Amino acid sequence: MGQDQSSVFDLAAVAAASNGGNNDPLLPPARFIGAPQKPSKMPYAKYVAYDKQVPFDYPERTWPGKRLQRAPRWCSVDLRDGNQALVNPMDSERKLRFWNLLVSMGFKEIEVGFPSASETDFDFIRMLIERELIPDDVTIVVLTQCREHLIRRTYEALKGAKRAIVHFYNSVSVLQREVVFRKNKEEIKKLAIDAAELCKSLESEAEGIDLYYEYSPESFTGTEPEYAVEVCNAVTGVIKPTPEHPMIINLPATVEMTTPNVFADEVEYVSNNLNDRDAIVLSLHPHNDEGMGVAATELAVLAGADRVEGCLLGNGERTGNVDLVTLGLNFLTQGIDPQIDYSNVPEIRKTVEYCNQIKISERHPYAGNFVFTAFSGSHQDAIKKGLEARQVAADRAGADLDKFVWLVPYLPIDPKDIGRSYEAIIRVNSQSGKGGMAYLLKTNHNLDLPKRLQVEFDKVVQNFADETKKEVKDEDIWRLFKDEYLPVEESGVTAAGAVVGDSSDETLKQWGRLKLLKVAVSSGEDGSDTVLKAKVLDRGIEPGDEPREREVSGIGNGPIAAFLNALSNFGIEASVMDYAEHTMSVGTDAMAASYVECQVGEDAEAQIIWGVGIDSSITTSALKAIISAINRSER
Amino acid sequence: MGQDQSSVFDLAAVAAASNGGNNDPLLPPARFIGAPQKPSKMPYAKYVAYDKQVPFDYPERTWPGKRLQRAPRWCSVDLRDGNQALVNPMDSERKLRFWNLLVSMGFKEIEVGFPSASETDFDFIRMLIERELIPDDVTIVVLTQCREHLIRRTYEALKGAKRAIVHFYNSVSVLQREVVFRKNKEEIKKLAIDAAELCKSLESEAEGIDLYYEYSPESFTGTEPEYAVEVCNAVTGVIKPTPEHPMIINLPATVEMTTPNVFADEVEYVSNNLNDRDAIVLSLHPHNDEGMGVAATELAVLAGADRVEGCLLGNGERTGNVDLVTLGLNFLTQGIDPQIDYSNVPEIRKTVEYCNQIKISERHPYAGNFVFTAFSGSHQDAIKKGLEARQVAADRAGADLDKFVWLVPYLPIDPKDIGRSYEAIIRVNSQSGKGGMAYLLKTNHNLDLPKRLQVEFDKVVQNFADETKKEVKDEDIWRLFKDEYLPVEESGVTAAGAVVGDSSDETLKQWGRLKLLKVAVSSGEDGSDTVLKAKVLDRGIEPGDEPREREVSGIGNGPIAAFLNALSNFGIEASVMDYAEHTMSVGTDAMAASYVECQVGEDAEAQIIWGVGIDSSITTSALKAIISAINRSER
Repeated sequence: MGQDQSSVFDLAAVAAASNGGNNDPLLPPARFIGAPQKPSKMPYAKYVAYDKQVPFDYPERTWPGKRLQRAPRWCSVDLRDGNQALVNPMDSERKLRFWNLLVSMGFKEIEVGFPSASETDFDFIRMLIERELIPDDVTIVVLTQCREHLIRRTYEALKGAKRAIVHFYNSVSVLQREVVFRKNKEEIKKLAIDAAELCKSLESEAEGIDLYYEYSPESFTGTEPEYAVEVCNAVTGVIKPTPEHPMIINLPATVEMTTPNVFADEVEYVSNNLNDRDAIVLSLHPHNDEGMGVAATELAVLAGADRVEGCLLGNGERTGNVDLVTLGLNFLTQGIDPQIDYSNVPEIRKTVEYCNQIKISERHPYAGNFVFTAFSGSHQDAIKKGLEARQVAADRAGADLDKFVWLVPYLPIDPKDIGRSYEAIIRVNSQSGKGGMAYLLKTNHNLDLPKRLQVEFDKVVQNFADETKKEVKDEDIWRLFKDEYLPVEESGVTAAGAVVGDSSDETLKQWGRLKLLKVAVSSGEDGSDTVLKAKVLDRGIEPGDEPREREVSGIGNGPIAAFLNALSNFGIEASVMDYAEHTMSVGTDAMAASYVECQVGEDAEAQIIWGVGIDSSITTSALKAIISAINRSER
Repeated sequence: MGQDQSSVFDLAAVAAASNGGNNDPLLPPARFIGAPQKPSKMPYAKYVAYDKQVPFDYPERTWPGKRLQRAPRWCSVDLRDGNQALVNPMDSERKLRFWNLLVSMGFKEIEVGFPSASETDFDFIRMLIERELIPDDVTIVVLTQCREHLIRRTYEALKGAKRAIVHFYNSVSVLQREVVFRKNKEEIKKLAIDAAELCKSLESEAEGIDLYYEYSPESFTGTEPEYAVEVCNAVTGVIKPTPEHPMIINLPATVEMTTPNVFADEVEYVSNNLNDRDAIVLSLHPHNDEGMGVAATELAVLAGADRVEGCLLGNGERTGNVDLVTLGLNFLTQGIDPQIDYSNVPEIRKTVEYCNQIKISERHPYAGNFVFTAFSGSHQDAIKKGLEARQVAADRAGADLDKFVWLVPYLPIDPKDIGRSYEAIIRVNSQSGKGGMAYLLKTNHNLDLPKRLQVEFDKVVQNFADETKKEVKDEDIWRLFKDEYLPVEESGVTAAGAVVGDSSDETLKQWGRLKLLKVAVSSGEDGSDTVLKAKVLDRGIEPGDEPREREVSGIGNGPIAAFLNALSNFGIEASVMDYAEHTMSVGTDAMAASYVECQVGEDAEAQIIWGVGIDSSITTSALKAIISAINRSER
């Protein structure tokens, strides 16, 4: 090892000992309420803050005030970096399937392997070339270390290709220089220069290939940015790229080591200090060790990067490469064409999970099962209102809803745009309020409950959820609703109140006292009162009561008033506080749903209670709703 | 709705139509090689860039040049925001288990529920209080909307608590004001003020409780920061916090809507414009819709936030709340005490997965199964060298290795510090180089192969991996190594070459021609030549040859030279090119491993080939190694 470097461990030990990493004891603790947090036993002093490992500041930065403007050039490294990180690397069938997916999505650069290190990779690349599976507008990238026999073998893999990028790399970080390569800065730089020169000299063997280069100062995040620039400029000095025939300089966040503002500073510094910048495609290769790979990428794009390497759904060594699906769709949410087809995320996920044999999490952005699901009642309510408001605005503008501006609370993207349905959006559990239940009844059963009825029924749903401690599924809500508001017959119970095939079900048997059997309404054209005659089955109040049919009649200024008048025959005093009715579908055989809020009984005994009726006749449905309210009041 | 607001849809439609979101057609495409990317069919024009939804810039920002310095105040919202997002919310057993985990880890603030919205939450809070399960140094937080009956019910839930934070919120975003609440800015602000006043008036019912407040301008990320400050200042104007009795202002990134530099700008702006800043604990509540929640949190801490709300391993609505485990361990990697005990991540993961009934991914930072695993050969090699260099540096410094500075390539954290082992670090597949195989042989079998032997054996491993297309497990490597270098007897094969119980295995039968049966070495003290006599079993070269024992003798300047001399009796000309030997363990019964690189044969027929011998005698192991090489040369 050269003499220009003392041991990183010595330096680090001093840095760590001086103030216990970055844990400055002179700082006051964060403001808080109650008792302070206690020191943990975590051995923080053995970790050296990034800015003590790689001291760097860049006050000239401009990226923090910038915004995303256009998609970068995307390069998938699924078949290389992703593949090498699998317990079971892909066989050729899986590799080809992944390749086809990438091509179909619109990727124009695909890193296909490390052919000098793996026979499988070598054979796969030969197959792509020999079977002419590479479309004219797709460029393959092959990776190699900066070592002579590996570079030579890499060129062998490329014979017959139309266009290719040879991607050579060596580690340049402080730590790797010392503990892995035991070489000083000049010696490490020479490895890169030698590789570049070897590549140039081998071009004669690559006749017929439109050949380009990519160089990665590997472990860039552990490297002094000034030194990384020095090495990259030395490499471009050999390759001599031009704007017409550029080369790629790729900055790997091989390990994510700190907050992404630092990475963005470093990238902006490199972008501003590379020679022949207009002949360079400045690329990123971020990993996700600290869970900030997507952010680091987007900030570094603001900082001047032209190109991004990553994997679909974030596969790759350890915590993975940066996730191209999340990145692409993040650009979409900013009104930017990702220039990659993400219109069928479920299909992409299926293929990726099959090829990688690794499942993604339920909460994976855009692709996870739960990411468009709202369990919270207030979220559900807001989504429902947002979808309605958007529909109204689109209608007003005469616009196609699918293309109309997407602004819906809690849903940053239209699930339909990426091949997902709305079905899973609203799910109800014991933590949900009435919004979700109301949404499901409207969406799946065409019942648009008035607000106060939602409040009333919500208590039924919440009791059920609190008892079962489980998700309340749509069928549960529908069953609860029918049990509560609709005549037992529609739940498979006979008119007499006995359950079909099972007379022991007390809950259903006791559903209600009254049933409307027949109704006739007449009113004169002259605006005179409505006269109503009805046949009603009265099952009585006490369990032993015999059901009997009774004919009743009443008079009023409309059917409802006349029916309430007729009901006084049963000793029932009821009045209607609120009433709503809507059709449940379009057409002549449409059913109507009626909701009435009744006051049943008088004075201190009075109850305010809702009833619901469904019938093809708007009159009958209203009367059924009144009976529903009365029956409920007597339960 | 008030008149100070035209429809957000109208504004958005104009913004989107003017330039297709942010997809500025005047910008040149990113630099690239080969063919350009094509426009996709993704409907980008329906999405409105964040800066067109919420125009805001903050050139006064100072956060980009800052670095993390200390842990913020942590608040777990697992039992509220996390719980409400589950298909099956936790029952009381699971809730209690989660509570106990949080308390044991050192959380001093825990949001325990939304008691006015859920009976389960109400009952759980009552249980915590009545059974006195809340340690004196832990403060519970209870959430409520800004609605009178909910706030009243919230206070009922708190009766008898020693200390509590009442957390009230209302949505203040542009979109929610219009489509959900249909109120203007003044009306929305009044909701918050009314709630604050109601809280103050209810304090008389909270006698004996050390009561604090938290206010969240919900959907903060969709809100004009100036207006959010206006509402927060109105609330603090009612609550009147003091530095001695502060209140929390909590900024929810309810939906993550853009790059985290924008969120950091907003937080720094709010921090600088709140009244009575020294009486405010400024808090964050980030979600992860764009996969940048961790980054947004860290940058916003740089921007001035004091406190962070999140969930363990990132549970929560949709893509989840920000992950407190990742955050805490990110602080640790910067030499900062997270003030939370993350020393047993596997146990934390187990409990969280049990309570939430959701699995995390294999690549989840710090906690996933694969995140400390290196499959790549160069990574494996660097890790091996890094661990060795660290050991050397610690020994030199006389330091305890467990506490010594952690600097190891590709491993940002010492797995042991979070309760994980090194076992899984190195795994070998067809994409791995020799480093991983060498590491496993050394770690698990005490064999430290010389570099050129690694190269030789690596071809065997690679062939196997390329054929099976599967992970090569340690036992595979050990079996391949024994098959290749060690006498068949040690693989369960008889001396005659027949496999025990199965004579049909050709591979094992043909393992080798020679076997060393006995050896005697004598040399004078005067430095005279060594004389060696050996009994060797010769199984012959052709399949039909009868095995026969032969006594041979030789002379040389040491046992190896004498043995090579003796072997000429078999017509074998061999010389040793390289030789290494080491003990395999400490103690008198230790075995020695010898590695010899031999040239076998002469001139054009010569082969350079390695052999390995293991024996309790250092002499015998060396001779066995020579026989191993010769046998291999004849196979």
